[in-house]
Amino acid sequence: MSSPGSDRLTRARAEMERGGIDVLLVGPSADLRYLTGYDAPQLERLTMLVLPASAEAVLVVPSLERARALDHGAAGLARVVTWDETDDPFERVRAAAGEPGRVAVGERMWALFVLALQERFPRAAFVGSDAVMRALRMRKDEGELDALRRAATAADRVASALAGERVAGKTERELARWISEALVTQGCEHAAFAIVASGPNAASPHHEPGDRVIEPGDALVCDFGGTVEGYSSDITRTFVVGEPPDGFHDAYAVLAKAQDAAVAAVVPGVPAESVDAAARSVIADAGFGDAFIHRTGHGIGLEVHEDPYIVAGNAEPLAPGMTFSVEPGIYFSGRFGMRIEDIVAVTEDGVERLNTAPRNPVLLS
Amino acid sequence: MSSPGSDRLTRARAEMERGGIDVLLVGPSADLRYLTGYDAPQLERLTMLVLPASAEAVLVVPSLERARALDHGAAGLARVVTWDETDDPFERVRAAAGEPGRVAVGERMWALFVLALQERFPRAAFVGSDAVMRALRMRKDEGELDALRRAATAADRVASALAGERVAGKTERELARWISEALVTQGCEHAAFAIVASGPNAASPHHEPGDRVIEPGDALVCDFGGTVEGYSSDITRTFVVGEPPDGFHDAYAVLAKAQDAAVAAVVPGVPAESVDAAARSVIADAGFGDAFIHRTGHGIGLEVHEDPYIVAGNAEPLAPGMTFSVEPGIYFSGRFGMRIEDIVAVTEDGVERLNTAPRNPVLLS
Repeated sequence: MSSPGSDRLTRARAEMERGGIDVLLVGPSADLRYLTGYDAPQLERLTMLVLPASAEAVLVVPSLERARALDHGAAGLARVVTWDETDDPFERVRAAAGEPGRVAVGERMWALFVLALQERFPRAAFVGSDAVMRALRMRKDEGELDALRRAATAADRVASALAGERVAGKTERELARWISEALVTQGCEHAAFAIVASGPNAASPHHEPGDRVIEPGDALVCDFGGTVEGYSSDITRTFVVGEPPDGFHDAYAVLAKAQDAAVAAVVPGVPAESVDAAARSVIADAGFGDAFIHRTGHGIGLEVHEDPYIVAGNAEPLAPGMTFSVEPGIYFSGRFGMRIEDIVAVTEDGVERLNTAPRNPVLLS
Repeated sequence: MSSPGSDRLTRARAEMERGGIDVLLVGPSADLRYLTGYDAPQLERLTMLVLPASAEAVLVVPSLERARALDHGAAGLARVVTWDETDDPFERVRAAAGEPGRVAVGERMWALFVLALQERFPRAAFVGSDAVMRALRMRKDEGELDALRRAATAADRVASALAGERVAGKTERELARWISEALVTQGCEHAAFAIVASGPNAASPHHEPGDRVIEPGDALVCDFGGTVEGYSSDITRTFVVGEPPDGFHDAYAVLAKAQDAAVAAVVPGVPAESVDAAARSVIADAGFGDAFIHRTGHGIGLEVHEDPYIVAGNAEPLAPGMTFSVEPGIYFSGRFGMRIEDIVAVTEDGVERLNTAPRNPVLLS
């Protein structure tokens, strides 16, 4: 794996200066991978990037993890400092951090470490790393967009292959496993998730694939993604098995129109919430407003869910390089549900759909 | 999945009283699963168990996750309170928590949530959930021991099957994948991890399986585990491929003696560190002290690494129901390495080995 280069650390320091932050402390997380290239496991043994505003960057790692950190190229960007099993790793952090007044800690850091840091820096104010990282990670560069496109293409191919599968008689869990394996076959490092929700289960947006056998008459919601160079895909397609339930096609026509309207609303400068409003108004106008029970989307990158969130109340202006899902859904409790999801990227003057698999509700046998 | 019953909440409240803790706040984690049976995904949307010392337990969940929480039986133990996409979930937490003076937060809770809670409860003192949960989770009950035994048996079977595989010519990554699949075949819900370290890579205890092709003359360290009902196994066996490197058998004899000595040192009442000392002194006496570069073990249960840690400085007295790894290793940088790991349980008067796969260094082709 290659190191991302030092410009990200430089930009992080610029954000720190803007926010009056003296040191950024980041444990194993997408933040760490973004800044240093090190995809570190979350462990009870402390690993931490210490990025002071005006001193050298230090990566504190357990001796046991040193080889892995070096393999990931982290040493190119930070001085690697190790600690042994009976050492106090927080002393290493303190030595590198000095006496900060304002500390930004990684948003995904475990409470265990946050509380220990607060004890070691009792006079410091603590804020979340979003104050530094949000501005950097929200707008993807060309390399990131390329990885996201390749992840999306792998998901598209799985969606298209699904359309040729015989699903009736399979359990949701079996089909979810088929999808996960197909994502790897299509070039993903691993499947990040696979939701398969059939029949009445399709009315639950985050249904866990279970033992229900898929049968004729089901609507079938498949929502899945996998990673390429750590960047994730996330696609949802709704299928019908044999003759769909009453009312399915009418609702689906509304949903497809809502998804198109939301994608069309994506242009630089508009607030994120306007994309949500575009989808919601189409669905509400058709009388299904109460059946659209979640936000329209979420940012995507090194995390499957990250900023910007496409939700009422988020006034963040869209900007080129932002990538997020557009995924309205309509759910009828106890009966059926449907969702269409694509990842889009904000361009200089509009929008690029990263997913291109057919959006019509393919009939499966 | 079944709910664990209310006695764990009762015991947690007893620990809270002992520690002067007014409310325990636990997000998606092994703590949550232990207390409520709910194996919740870690998400940016807040899920939180609010357990006040003397008011009803409330589980705050996103509306989207309500069905999953109910499926996992959480509603039997706590009142489920939902929040919608544009609600403030922390208001739900505050309503259930009252005005605590001392708050225990889950050790694995994301910083994002810890900082938000500190803002909502500005006068409260925050401590980690270990103050409550450590005493409960460290000693396993019969149901937990049964799950750990079954997970260990699955790992044993994979270790034994490995002894019949042809490994020369495979890459580390291919063999790691074979192990992961075999763990599922043997009844694990999923493979938790699989380290395959060959030749000089075996000198790095946490080596990531890579593209190196396993070849005659290699020592081969395989360290893997999978879960049964959420409880993990963790076994390490060292193999030799063809004729082993010079000095291998002498060092291995020392290692096996050290591992036996450490297991024999496990009796109720002795400090955890004495088990580490038992292994370390055998290895040091043979002149390999500098080559044993990590602690002797870690507790295991719903997490692969949890209390008690078998390390110098840990005076925690061993007690019946504690389960942990005993895994000394000897590593010669750039040449080869070896490790033997079993999970053991402390019994009323001694020790039970959960792993029984042969420990001699089987010759592979």
